[in-house]
Amino acid sequence: MSTNHHMSRDETQIRALIEARVRAVQAKDVDAALADVAANVVLFDVVTPLHSRGVRAEQARLEEWIASFEGPIGYEMRDLVIVTDDTVAFSHALHHYSGKTRAGVLDMWVRATTGYRKTDGVWRITHEHQSTPFDPASGKTSLDLEP
Amino acid sequence: MSTNHHMSRDETQIRALIEARVRAVQAKDVDAALADVAANVVLFDVVTPLHSRGVRAEQARLEEWIASFEGPIGYEMRDLVIVTDDTVAFSHALHHYSGKTRAGVLDMWVRATTGYRKTDGVWRITHEHQSTPFDPASGKTSLDLEP
Repeated sequence: MSTNHHMSRDETQIRALIEARVRAVQAKDVDAALADVAANVVLFDVVTPLHSRGVRAEQARLEEWIASFEGPIGYEMRDLVIVTDDTVAFSHALHHYSGKTRAGVLDMWVRATTGYRKTDGVWRITHEHQSTPFDPASGKTSLDLEP
Repeated sequence: MSTNHHMSRDETQIRALIEARVRAVQAKDVDAALADVAANVVLFDVVTPLHSRGVRAEQARLEEWIASFEGPIGYEMRDLVIVTDDTVAFSHALHHYSGKTRAGVLDMWVRATTGYRKTDGVWRITHEHQSTPFDPASGKTSLDLEP
């Protein structure tokens, strides 16, 4: 766990990157939210399609998602773990998204895993995987789970 | 992409670990499939719950899943990417699971992301995230998607 040892400079940088992204999403600032995403990022998103590649695909998805909110976006994170070496890192956390959307009240927990590479001294996200599990009995995704 | 450069020893080790796990699942050998999983692994699984921790939780889930098959387990992987440094690595891929189960014919693609740490020279899985996306219109998980 990242909280159990002295934080390395790399871990501090990645933590700052994560916190900046949370603030960017809360501010509905798509450019800022994508500032640290690699051009050829591989995205496994909460909703279809199965997978996509490239920051432009992520931009389109994020713009659509942000536009669906009527009012503020609630975005909190818990159980964040950052594992980092000199040039490779990954993190995982539970994200709590909430707010009023066109479709109604949103209040859901999402599992998030992120992969990072450091190139020329700069950490960039090369992989993002966010999802909800489904209930095998109904085939429905489970949007009402809490940690 | 792991295929575009000379493979490091670490990447070779992780690739071997992944291939051994595929063979273990195909052989329905739960112990072998969990041989490289850290005791305190954090699991974000395809089905509920939201998250779980520990190799015993993963073992229970894997035993249940394997027992649901009547006959062979089809398990193939594509778009595998391995990113590794000296002591931290992650990988992502699309998994194709198929076969005859108690519930009917299974033929689904799953997104998989795995996090690894090397301790005392041995790579271990400390995080696994497997999921299917859902269709926001129906709330149903999408089991019929192909890459």
